[in-house]
Amino acid sequence: MTPPPTPEPAAASRAIPTPSAPPPDVLRCASMELVVTDLQRSRAFYADVLGLVVTEEDADTVYLRTFEEFIHHNLVLRQGPVAAVAAFSYRVRTPDDLDRAEAFYRERGCRTERRAQGWVRGLGDTVRVEDPLGFPYEFFHDVEHVERLAWRYELFTPGALVRLDHFNQVTPDVPRAVAYMEDLGFRVTEDIQDDEGTVYAAWMRRKPTVHDAAMTGGAGPRMHHLAFATHEKHNIIAICDKLGALRRSDCIERGPGRHGVSNAFYLYLRDPDGHRVEIYTQDYYTGDPDNPVVTWDVHDNQRRDWWGNPVVPSWYTDASLVLDLDGNPQPVVARTEASEMAVTIGADGFSYTRGDDDRGLPDWKLGEHQRGEYKLGHQL
Amino acid sequence: MTPPPTPEPAAASRAIPTPSAPPPDVLRCASMELVVTDLQRSRAFYADVLGLVVTEEDADTVYLRTFEEFIHHNLVLRQGPVAAVAAFSYRVRTPDDLDRAEAFYRERGCRTERRAQGWVRGLGDTVRVEDPLGFPYEFFHDVEHVERLAWRYELFTPGALVRLDHFNQVTPDVPRAVAYMEDLGFRVTEDIQDDEGTVYAAWMRRKPTVHDAAMTGGAGPRMHHLAFATHEKHNIIAICDKLGALRRSDCIERGPGRHGVSNAFYLYLRDPDGHRVEIYTQDYYTGDPDNPVVTWDVHDNQRRDWWGNPVVPSWYTDASLVLDLDGNPQPVVARTEASEMAVTIGADGFSYTRGDDDRGLPDWKLGEHQRGEYKLGHQL
Amino acid sequence: MTPPPTPEPAAASRAIPTPSAPPPDVLRCASMELVVTDLQRSRAFYADVLGLVVTEEDADTVYLRTFEEFIHHNLVLRQGPVAAVAAFSYRVRTPDDLDRAEAFYRERGCRTERRAQGWVRGLGDTVRVEDPLGFPYEFFHDVEHVERLAWRYELFTPGALVRLDHFNQVTPDVPRAVAYMEDLGFRVTEDIQDDEGTVYAAWMRRKPTVHDAAMTGGAGPRMHHLAFATHEKHNIIAICDKLGALRRSDCIERGPGRHGVSNAFYLYLRDPDGHRVEIYTQDYYTGDPDNPVVTWDVHDNQRRDWWGNPVVPSWYTDASLVLDLDGNPQPVVARTEASEMAVTIGADGFSYTRGDDDRGLPDWKLGEHQRGEYKLGHQL
Amino acid sequence: MTPPPTPEPAAASRAIPTPSAPPPDVLRCASMELVVTDLQRSRAFYADVLGLVVTEEDADTVYLRTFEEFIHHNLVLRQGPVAAVAAFSYRVRTPDDLDRAEAFYRERGCRTERRAQGWVRGLGDTVRVEDPLGFPYEFFHDVEHVERLAWRYELFTPGALVRLDHFNQVTPDVPRAVAYMEDLGFRVTEDIQDDEGTVYAAWMRRKPTVHDAAMTGGAGPRMHHLAFATHEKHNIIAICDKLGALRRSDCIERGPGRHGVSNAFYLYLRDPDGHRVEIYTQDYYTGDPDNPVVTWDVHDNQRRDWWGNPVVPSWYTDASLVLDLDGNPQPVVARTEASEMAVTIGADGFSYTRGDDDRGLPDWKLGEHQRGEYKLGHQL
Repeated sequence: MTPPPTPEPAAASRAIPTPSAPPPDVLRCASMELVVTDLQRSRAFYADVLGLVVTEEDADTVYLRTFEEFIHHNLVLRQGPVAAVAAFSYRVRTPDDLDRAEAFYRERGCRTERRAQGWVRGLGDTVRVEDPLGFPYEFFHDVEHVERLAWRYELFTPGALVRLDHFNQVTPDVPRAVAYMEDLGFRVTEDIQDDEGTVYAAWMRRKPTVHDAAMTGGAGPRMHHLAFATHEKHNIIAICDKLGALRRSDCIERGPGRHGVSNAFYLYLRDPDGHRVEIYTQDYYTGDPDNPVVTWDVHDNQRRDWWGNPVVPSWYTDASLVLDLDGNPQPVVARTEASEMAVTIGADGFSYTRGDDDRGLPDWKLGEHQRGEYKLGHQL
Repeated sequence: MTPPPTPEPAAASRAIPTPSAPPPDVLRCASMELVVTDLQRSRAFYADVLGLVVTEEDADTVYLRTFEEFIHHNLVLRQGPVAAVAAFSYRVRTPDDLDRAEAFYRERGCRTERRAQGWVRGLGDTVRVEDPLGFPYEFFHDVEHVERLAWRYELFTPGALVRLDHFNQVTPDVPRAVAYMEDLGFRVTEDIQDDEGTVYAAWMRRKPTVHDAAMTGGAGPRMHHLAFATHEKHNIIAICDKLGALRRSDCIERGPGRHGVSNAFYLYLRDPDGHRVEIYTQDYYTGDPDNPVVTWDVHDNQRRDWWGNPVVPSWYTDASLVLDLDGNPQPVVARTEASEMAVTIGADGFSYTRGDDDRGLPDWKLGEHQRGEYKLGHQL
Repeated sequence: MTPPPTPEPAAASRAIPTPSAPPPDVLRCASMELVVTDLQRSRAFYADVLGLVVTEEDADTVYLRTFEEFIHHNLVLRQGPVAAVAAFSYRVRTPDDLDRAEAFYRERGCRTERRAQGWVRGLGDTVRVEDPLGFPYEFFHDVEHVERLAWRYELFTPGALVRLDHFNQVTPDVPRAVAYMEDLGFRVTEDIQDDEGTVYAAWMRRKPTVHDAAMTGGAGPRMHHLAFATHEKHNIIAICDKLGALRRSDCIERGPGRHGVSNAFYLYLRDPDGHRVEIYTQDYYTGDPDNPVVTWDVHDNQRRDWWGNPVVPSWYTDASLVLDLDGNPQPVVARTEASEMAVTIGADGFSYTRGDDDRGLPDWKLGEHQRGEYKLGHQL
Repeated sequence: MTPPPTPEPAAASRAIPTPSAPPPDVLRCASMELVVTDLQRSRAFYADVLGLVVTEEDADTVYLRTFEEFIHHNLVLRQGPVAAVAAFSYRVRTPDDLDRAEAFYRERGCRTERRAQGWVRGLGDTVRVEDPLGFPYEFFHDVEHVERLAWRYELFTPGALVRLDHFNQVTPDVPRAVAYMEDLGFRVTEDIQDDEGTVYAAWMRRKPTVHDAAMTGGAGPRMHHLAFATHEKHNIIAICDKLGALRRSDCIERGPGRHGVSNAFYLYLRDPDGHRVEIYTQDYYTGDPDNPVVTWDVHDNQRRDWWGNPVVPSWYTDASLVLDLDGNPQPVVARTEASEMAVTIGADGFSYTRGDDDRGLPDWKLGEHQRGEYKLGHQL
């Protein structure tokens, strides 16, 4: 059955108590600041290989944007000693939302720091916080406008990135993270659970796509990936083809493929520091308040890849460090609940393709090599 | 380096001595006759899932064709006790080429059998042979014309198959097979070798695409796959999406991906009997007599998948039996030379992404999980 | 120059005075009710040719939806004596927004009518109004949920319609219409003007795409078109190909092409009653409050078609009647300002491709046939 | 009915008597030499806008090729006083085919000239002729090999041209031209006729696509267009989008669209001298000797554009001069038979969409503006 019947969405057990301060009105995920250990190598990856547009740069920092963006940047690369994420940056609707952001986090006992001139170029008044999960979140409204290059097709590459789509964060306790994000005004669109109610991951949105931020269960706080959107699927294939031509195919970690969750077409790359970048296209509209939440069974082998292609272990295990507001890496705390990798891959795990409801189609036997691996078929 | 400098093409050592009889003038691979163990299940796979068009059928047999075909069929499904291939069928230019085919194979001591009314419906005068490699080859010229559905877009599915493209056969001694196929008038377009001259696979063509037939080194005679062409890459993705929707994603064995060899975009499926079907698009024109042969190093990790994605072991090991002219399975003989899987995967094998020539791009370290696997990077 | 520097957006001269009642919180354009004169013929067009999904139907009415929709319908076809539009239907955020809608329109002296059980199946409490421009607008929140077919790829056609995107309405006084829509909470994203400030058309949005509703200057109130979205451009081409195969190519009125305004890829069809339907894909995100408004010069020959292909006159002149709440056609009032067709096409009009700023590229001479027509080149 | 029942192919009336000399074995159309009046402007168009690859160049000449080509060039641009075609160049199978070409044309009384070092760089021994229709045909076998860039995706643009596909020539007497081309070993794949047997155009092939050369009835000898192939339809759309971005949309003469004849997706551009270039993708395999010929009724409104979009008059009337072997323009002779434009467009002509066989689908009325134009609908 596709998608499966919807159980309860990610429950808000063990949640951070909801404070009384209203959240800022977040428009969308807008940018990420990445610390990279070799700026020119990273610039080559994002600007020359992926074709992001350099808005401006100096000796230590490169500001990049997508083709349909009109604000100063969607990605900041900053030279630093340790590869990490310095900020997950959200745009808010009004200047006053910065006050609300400060109050919202202070009531939660979180460290906040506000800079009228911004932490990076192109932005004005900005609040950064160390959020309850340990992530460096940034909120801004004032921003320099730059040319929206949507009509500048003479600059497009075959794999043109047109929008920043979302962040994906690793955190040990997904329901706790969901409760906090719901307080912040996000809505769950999809999640992955098991029969006992363990939540493995959840997708949450402000703009009406499947997500601005996803929370993935694991040792955290860490950054799993940031994602850029293309217009069509062939754009993503073109990126793979180019990486092959450049003999950089080892940057391709997973995919391309079709997600079950989100229904989007995807590709995962690893940048020169190992930061993970997703290229993503064609999820669906989620803007209605009663948008149906889709809950996937963690054992459904099509949840992560609709075609049942295996998720490589590194995709589950690797993620980037995040920094506190002083620029030091946040300590990483292990997940205590079951790991999605363990319950679905290898000796410990199982997955199914059809469940008991096989639509009357007969099964056929896979080779032995596949049966012992990730694409396990009818085993429930 | 892309593609690598061209060494000698697959040498004709250990070849079947070239006889004096001229070969028939083969136009193209035209059809395959597959024995299937559950005809309705196979019909559902090829007609309902893949959308091949049923030209005609009876209790034991279904004749299918692609959307741009004007001859009676490109695939015959016949109910039988053992899943196998009954015929690799080629169309020849003139009726007289059947005489040439008989003489060509008789001079080689091969069993031939000619039937004026054909072995299957839709065909007239037909020769079948047990070829020197043990494969059941069929040659015909007379054939019933049917409507070419190229303009019938109201019948197209998102994954419409428009042409039969090629066969891929498994045989122990690839140079021997190449020598025979060259006598039959085929030309090598690409192959896979190692530094010592071991040939792992070769691609050969009559029509000016990369191949009508490929020879893959392994225990044989067996049929590795037959391939249908689509117009665009999204058509192949649509087939994957549909298989996911039908909860048949375990039919997807490998891909989709971009081949190094042939430069085509591909997908490998397994039918209900395990027969392998490739969906394929966008290789290149090879019709000039001096068309450059591309030889790939067996250790080049982009030869089989340009993006470096792993080839699943079943793709190397599994293949279909083939029948003799009495309908009995041909005995399978093991390959004695090195196996491509062994030399490139797992504990015994190695592969590289860049070789010594890395175009000046710096390397970056993959996660441990990837390093031990198929996508090994700079290790030479 | 692309896009041109932004003058003032469509000015609110001659505006309907802004009342004090707050507008309802409109989520998105959600559905249109079309009166058709031959229900089965229209059903064949929308369900069999375009592939919209029938949610339910009875003798007089067919309810259809797109593949990614989860509410009951995006299009209602109702048998009637005169082809017309019975409702432009918007979904609002909460049930209370219906009260706000009533107050908003009553304060403007507009006729409103509320039905607790809805005017059509699938909807609950609904308000319909005769708006200040004479259009029958509908507002609802309560709606029956149905299966979102986004993952049901086995049902997809090559031209699958996945979302209702927008309405386009014809009205004589565009600035007056803009002022009203801004009161209703819409924001202008793009418009077409001339040097003297005459506004020819404006695009306005609630959801963060280029529009939920566009206002086109002309005799009105009339409905110019409704638009459905596809995922990719080839989906739109597939619709054209199918119409050709069905020998219904005379349904294609204009396109396919690339819009200047909105940057989307488009196609315009005419249904069996002549109602115009656009198929549309890939405009851009507009959800930030300071989203840059793009104003196009009416003489820019790439504003309506980025490739400079001519807009057929019927596209400017033809539109559908709209009904009042009693089901009678609203009288049509002529536009008094300059007509876009007149100022840009034929003996009276002119257009340019490059303006004075030709980026240094030399001109070349077109054939005489083109020079006298729509694609006029460097004439300013 | 689609395609219509096949009458006789273009009859060989008024043919040039078939001589006894066998024709050269032509592999394929391989290159065109274009004289251009502003070399840098033309270089900008073909190399910078269309992205053809410059193999080499000097002060007067630029040699360009497509991404999948391995011979020296597919297009030669040469500075000259009058825009014209200096050579339609075909590659032949063997060096001996040059002797056959000389004999073939000499027996027909045609001027021939052979140059051992070629007429242009990259080619060896070459024969040029003034053929019986007045066209400068070139035949060569020896050619410099260059890198086939098929795998060099880092160089690809969104509209990458991968192959030279065909030439289209204008000549007054199409059956006479067909008879000559059949003697030269070409086969007709499609043509356009009327009920009285007048032939308006014919498509002929050597390589197994729909054509290497088409003959279009009109004042000639003139060159109608040369055509390059892309992989997918979106590549063609990308070329249009880029031309719009460069404010060169007036280079787009016709399309993009779907041909009836050939079933290919197409676009027609005009270069800075007005030479017409087609971008073309996805026709079908024609390599069997009994490949069905498709004959289109000249009044079928879907023959030239499957979607019924109008053919602009300049497409019928404009074409490039061709040169004799001294470099002087060949005189142009008018067509005496009916003109396709006259019989299908405007006051004199008519076309239909459905004919008498309307598949039971009801007609609907187009706006007056369309009815008087090219897309006329059910009038037979």
